[in-house]
Amino acid sequence: MDQLSVAHLLGIKYLKPSDIELIFKTADHFKEVINRPIKKVPSLRDITIANLFFENSTRTKLSFELAEKRLSADVINFSASQSSVKKGETLIDTVNNILSMKVDIVVMRHANVGAGVFLAKHVNAKIINAGDGTHEHPTQALLDSYSIREKLGTVKGKKIVIIGDILHSRVALSNIFALQMQGAEVKVCGPTTLIPKYITSLGVTVETNLKKALEWCDVANVLRVQNERMDINYFPSTREYTQLFGINKEILDNLDKKIVIMHPGPINRGVEITSDVADSEQSIILHQVENGVAIRMAVIYLLAEQIKR
Amino acid sequence: MDQLSVAHLLGIKYLKPSDIELIFKTADHFKEVINRPIKKVPSLRDITIANLFFENSTRTKLSFELAEKRLSADVINFSASQSSVKKGETLIDTVNNILSMKVDIVVMRHANVGAGVFLAKHVNAKIINAGDGTHEHPTQALLDSYSIREKLGTVKGKKIVIIGDILHSRVALSNIFALQMQGAEVKVCGPTTLIPKYITSLGVTVETNLKKALEWCDVANVLRVQNERMDINYFPSTREYTQLFGINKEILDNLDKKIVIMHPGPINRGVEITSDVADSEQSIILHQVENGVAIRMAVIYLLAEQIKR
Amino acid sequence: MDQLSVAHLLGIKYLKPSDIELIFKTADHFKEVINRPIKKVPSLRDITIANLFFENSTRTKLSFELAEKRLSADVINFSASQSSVKKGETLIDTVNNILSMKVDIVVMRHANVGAGVFLAKHVNAKIINAGDGTHEHPTQALLDSYSIREKLGTVKGKKIVIIGDILHSRVALSNIFALQMQGAEVKVCGPTTLIPKYITSLGVTVETNLKKALEWCDVANVLRVQNERMDINYFPSTREYTQLFGINKEILDNLDKKIVIMHPGPINRGVEITSDVADSEQSIILHQVENGVAIRMAVIYLLAEQIKR
Repeated sequence: MDQLSVAHLLGIKYLKPSDIELIFKTADHFKEVINRPIKKVPSLRDITIANLFFENSTRTKLSFELAEKRLSADVINFSASQSSVKKGETLIDTVNNILSMKVDIVVMRHANVGAGVFLAKHVNAKIINAGDGTHEHPTQALLDSYSIREKLGTVKGKKIVIIGDILHSRVALSNIFALQMQGAEVKVCGPTTLIPKYITSLGVTVETNLKKALEWCDVANVLRVQNERMDINYFPSTREYTQLFGINKEILDNLDKKIVIMHPGPINRGVEITSDVADSEQSIILHQVENGVAIRMAVIYLLAEQIKR
Repeated sequence: MDQLSVAHLLGIKYLKPSDIELIFKTADHFKEVINRPIKKVPSLRDITIANLFFENSTRTKLSFELAEKRLSADVINFSASQSSVKKGETLIDTVNNILSMKVDIVVMRHANVGAGVFLAKHVNAKIINAGDGTHEHPTQALLDSYSIREKLGTVKGKKIVIIGDILHSRVALSNIFALQMQGAEVKVCGPTTLIPKYITSLGVTVETNLKKALEWCDVANVLRVQNERMDINYFPSTREYTQLFGINKEILDNLDKKIVIMHPGPINRGVEITSDVADSEQSIILHQVENGVAIRMAVIYLLAEQIKR
Repeated sequence: MDQLSVAHLLGIKYLKPSDIELIFKTADHFKEVINRPIKKVPSLRDITIANLFFENSTRTKLSFELAEKRLSADVINFSASQSSVKKGETLIDTVNNILSMKVDIVVMRHANVGAGVFLAKHVNAKIINAGDGTHEHPTQALLDSYSIREKLGTVKGKKIVIIGDILHSRVALSNIFALQMQGAEVKVCGPTTLIPKYITSLGVTVETNLKKALEWCDVANVLRVQNERMDINYFPSTREYTQLFGINKEILDNLDKKIVIMHPGPINRGVEITSDVADSEQSIILHQVENGVAIRMAVIYLLAEQIKR
């Protein structure tokens, strides 16, 4: 059987195009599984997975947990607020302790860039990065591409614009890597204060005019506005942001084509996107959530395959 | 097989007497199950249940979780403090996201009256109301009636007094509906400041004298005093409440019969009820807790039956 | 088959030497199990276990949870922060409610000395003390002794020094009882302000000079420095503690033998122990964690055996 070329899922940038294809093919299978009455397979009865969330998360954590349960893995949950981390223990001690309890796979979200890479070097378990600071969020990018492929048949040759706070977004960065690897064209759109200077060096074009960006694209991936970054000291304010970059029905109806609308959630309705857009037929937001479980099942399954059992 | 007349359990007021009978008959079966050495049945291996608790809860949440596990359902827990709700996501977005992960039944506690009814209209899953504001708490009322029926043979024709803060109690309201539907007579007893004006329009009589209320009844369902409502700005204070409405052994011993004592918990020992009463042979408080698991298994099982599998 | 002489695991002081031997023999079996590809046994499918943690814990809670899952028990988790305890409910009410839901075994951590003993008297379930105040933490002491036995072949006749804040440590007290019961010699070492006067009455010797203590021993069990106790009002400060009682590579290399280093975690690297010591070949810290799961499986299994099924 085919194997991933990597030993961990630390970021999209470490993958080859064939890895993405293998993950998608495997996810196709699991998507069938989770649409059957009995949504469970006994594949990973001999695998123990620890979900280590050092930052709050709802949907990502739930999605991983469901994926793990539907693979019949044993699951341990650990979140920072209940943990020794408060007592000043180092990351590596926390994780080593958990691994000594015979854990095979660690799914980790952490505020620090590179936390997953660091772990993978020092501990004897498969690491899945569920978000490291402003760096990568690979399973989100995989489920986003998978959802585009499902909707449009392929990612190759499609034009995708990522709209919002590119500077602080791990979703944006992982998406850029994944989309380019599959032959899509990528543009980013947002306030210049929230677009990093290095972005053009990644082969991405910048468009600060929302209307032009939407006219260009096949798919608009709308990022969540981080209200906490939009305070009085920043330009733009939330209100200014909505006026300049908020997507509403009127803007969409004035385009000469029906573009696909995506959003990683949670949505600020009326801020970066209005309710009639989020809930419209052009939106595949809830498909993204559904596909998230299938993609995570695929990633976990493929990494578990590498463990000598 | 018999079916419930409703598609969700949103409140007792939406049920028919035959629904209550069906739930009780089903609970009889599950009560046998949970008293066997192996307390589990494989009935719902193909059902995924999400417990969404937007308010704190101990016993209700644990009771639902146990009921679900004993039916072999897949269970996801979600509590507001770890959630996107903090980030300002709407209720419907939160729930839709969870449902996109293929959840069949949602058990929800929420501070807003009607939150369950709202959800049932907008999402494609079975909804069980585990308490919505001061409105209804239907599984509590069902387990209360079930416990009376177990103790006294029937609910029909029995005299039940509900004692305490009727104004803010979803337990009181659901109990009134359930008891009347089964042909019981219901009285409420408490400080006039804590009895809503509309209560008599429900066919309930009011008694502000505790002794008279107890002399009249077969069963006293003693509500928890909400200490947080009993501050300096309210009449009565906790102390005054205990003097006027607190139930102790002496009061009970002066009655010419042995009435049944119930309490939904958690108990404020020495406030609304003394320890010797709570722990006496007249008390069925712990049977209520035990029956709670059987009743919740029955409700979940009957709703799951309606899902075309 | 052999049985424990006790009905609960409340503290090491209630055990007989033969109980410890039986637990270790059983743990040997489970240690094999958790090193197999499929780390699970179906032994306790008919047992429901409630983990009641009224104090925060990471590793102990995770370790118990894994042990329970690997025995295939049904598990309910309950931590104080989400609970009725905040509403002022008594411990016994909380636990009685949980038991009415048909729980067979309660694993409890509580801030009060004797909380487990109190429960065992009043409720109808097996109690396992997972730490009660500054009193006992029996499973920690069992896994510590088990790890010494694994490393050195036996505990009998070995010289063990426990280093640190003996006064506030339940780990120290349970270890003293367990080690003496197995025929080890025990010394404690630390600042005189943190060594209780009664300690010599337990047959333990006191050594305030770290070097002398290490020269004497076969095994050093290094306790965690409780930073919260090391504030300006105490002697020693954290810095003074490290200078006087911190263990580093240089100190170890100057001894004429290789002693075994233990630590119950979480480690304050650079305070009571340096990283090169914690991660050295002399350290069995991660074996302690691994053995914790096997020991807890053994204790739970042996107590469950006593339940008439």
